[in-house]
Amino acid sequence: MTARIIDFLNSRRPDGPCLVVDLDVVRENYLAFAHALPDTRVFYAVKANPAPEVLALLASLGSNFDCASVAEIDMALAAGATPDRISFGNTIKKERDVAAAFARGINLYAVDCEAEVDKVARAAPGTRVFCRILCDGAGAEWPLSRKFGCEPEMAVGVLEHAHRSGLRAYGVSFHVGSQQANTEAWDGALASAAGIFHTLAERGIQLSMVNLGGGFPTRYLKEIPGVENYASSIDSALKRHFGNRIPETIIEPGRGMVGNAGIIKTEVVLISKKSDSADDLRWVYLDIGKFGGLAETMDESIRYPIRTAHDHDEKTPCVLAGPTCDSADVLYEKAPYHLPVSLSIGDEVLIEGTGAYTTTYSAVAFNGFKPLEAYVI
Amino acid sequence: MTARIIDFLNSRRPDGPCLVVDLDVVRENYLAFAHALPDTRVFYAVKANPAPEVLALLASLGSNFDCASVAEIDMALAAGATPDRISFGNTIKKERDVAAAFARGINLYAVDCEAEVDKVARAAPGTRVFCRILCDGAGAEWPLSRKFGCEPEMAVGVLEHAHRSGLRAYGVSFHVGSQQANTEAWDGALASAAGIFHTLAERGIQLSMVNLGGGFPTRYLKEIPGVENYASSIDSALKRHFGNRIPETIIEPGRGMVGNAGIIKTEVVLISKKSDSADDLRWVYLDIGKFGGLAETMDESIRYPIRTAHDHDEKTPCVLAGPTCDSADVLYEKAPYHLPVSLSIGDEVLIEGTGAYTTTYSAVAFNGFKPLEAYVI
Repeated sequence: MTARIIDFLNSRRPDGPCLVVDLDVVRENYLAFAHALPDTRVFYAVKANPAPEVLALLASLGSNFDCASVAEIDMALAAGATPDRISFGNTIKKERDVAAAFARGINLYAVDCEAEVDKVARAAPGTRVFCRILCDGAGAEWPLSRKFGCEPEMAVGVLEHAHRSGLRAYGVSFHVGSQQANTEAWDGALASAAGIFHTLAERGIQLSMVNLGGGFPTRYLKEIPGVENYASSIDSALKRHFGNRIPETIIEPGRGMVGNAGIIKTEVVLISKKSDSADDLRWVYLDIGKFGGLAETMDESIRYPIRTAHDHDEKTPCVLAGPTCDSADVLYEKAPYHLPVSLSIGDEVLIEGTGAYTTTYSAVAFNGFKPLEAYVI
Repeated sequence: MTARIIDFLNSRRPDGPCLVVDLDVVRENYLAFAHALPDTRVFYAVKANPAPEVLALLASLGSNFDCASVAEIDMALAAGATPDRISFGNTIKKERDVAAAFARGINLYAVDCEAEVDKVARAAPGTRVFCRILCDGAGAEWPLSRKFGCEPEMAVGVLEHAHRSGLRAYGVSFHVGSQQANTEAWDGALASAAGIFHTLAERGIQLSMVNLGGGFPTRYLKEIPGVENYASSIDSALKRHFGNRIPETIIEPGRGMVGNAGIIKTEVVLISKKSDSADDLRWVYLDIGKFGGLAETMDESIRYPIRTAHDHDEKTPCVLAGPTCDSADVLYEKAPYHLPVSLSIGDEVLIEGTGAYTTTYSAVAFNGFKPLEAYVI
């Protein structure tokens, strides 16, 4: 919650749900990462929030960019990043998209299997690839499946294949799980990465880089460790596993860069009960839900802080739901949300920590509702 | 799968994932409903697929429209429906949206609590309201939460309140759950509806209409009962519970109207394994996933039929996933999908039964990917 956002909402009074992002907070976050990890290059995960103003600010501050698609690469270029500051970090790429990235000068690609190496070797010959390895993600709030990465043993073969295919086997990446509260989570993956460096060195292939991925949390309801805690823990783990041959490192913060920079303004559309029974829960319906930008409430994974003008009043548990005619559009029900008894239909509600993974998740027109509006200030 | 869709895909060869909807199938579906339930008015659930061509066809055939928002009301009007053929069927409406609907001449509104009645009474005085009641949804594939509707006992009070507020207490609605395979599912809810009619009649309020909702399935992998089976079961239940005072009835098919009219064309982007172990599952990544239109694979609820050019070959279980950098973008993993061993990167894959609840669910730009393109032929 920043004074600039409150001022904006009070003066502009936008109609309908909207996200407001404060660039000052993004700047602070970037500088905190750069300060805490001075030897690590920051690749902002564009997918978290690709607003042109956010990308332009980060480009001007010296950030690099982790892009998931050619469209994101074009956004990063348009924001002022040069191709050497852009990684095509999606392990699932069409070969024609690799070719399009290569034509734009992109020289760093993620892979996690030999078939993906083959695409890069054909469509972006001579470029650098890093292999993503699986990581158990324990301690993370937004669960990571086994979708990306391969077992570390297999990564050796993938990188060797890249080397034989004329690519530069550049490094190893992993992701410890989004909204990772455990500062030690990087240790196990760094041990695996060091093992891969070692095995490949014995085969004459010198890797250069470890991509430490994202996972840096933003503050929702619980306190989180500061960036400097992550930095010192990662620094120790690097020394522990790589000794005096510390590799080049990069990080890919997304949520940690923009999450706390944004607030969604929403409105109470309806408050009701399902029966006349006195102990029945209230249902509070907002004008934004799972399909309007709050997709990360899926399985009630991310629990956002919610502010109302009545927060000094007594609070009772509520089911919180979105406005669409989809019965799955319920935000919190298994763990009801405590909201003030004096909350009324028409009241404004602020949802904090919504700068990441909201606007772009929003459905194009479900139920005829417009996608989430965003204002970057 | 229709010859027209196959011809379209073969001649137009659209790039990227797309939905193709065959209007001939929509026409057949509408006529099947109209034929099987001659005394019931059809209100097409616009949210299922609001393509202007679909709405215009249904308007020309005489369909009515169940709308979830003012934007959907405007689409139905633009397609040629008059206001008396439109219901504002969302129980969660902003008062200013009720006013906007009233200004357009809409005379039928859904409610499920007194607060919603108050909004309609203020913003759309004198109009007709029906009260939605809860229904357990047993037998449905797409689960219904308790989000919409109230207990039948409470509905009596809600409708009485509407009557006292100068509205016309018009009827009762319920929804037996989407993709409902049990033709008898309407019986219990009709018993509750008849009880509400009876109680209110004793208090001098004559209800007129039962809104039987949607729930009519489309064919995915399992055989489903024909519309005529639902019709005869509903007819028996109406007679059983209402005797010789059968009310006016309406239905709100969405999936049942357009689901089998559409096919999504997608492409295999990557096939890989996570380890060198021989019994490791293949992962098949498509260029469409949960955020590109296949939101109903959430919790693996809806299992779409998938066609490839290799379906005569041996099949083995695969994890099926989408193209985004979101680890939750996995379509089928808990119950892996059997796909041909000869399936290759770049192959076209057709996903059947995707005419409903796909285009509008698609994310506006997640990972920079465009929303699902649609062609209505």
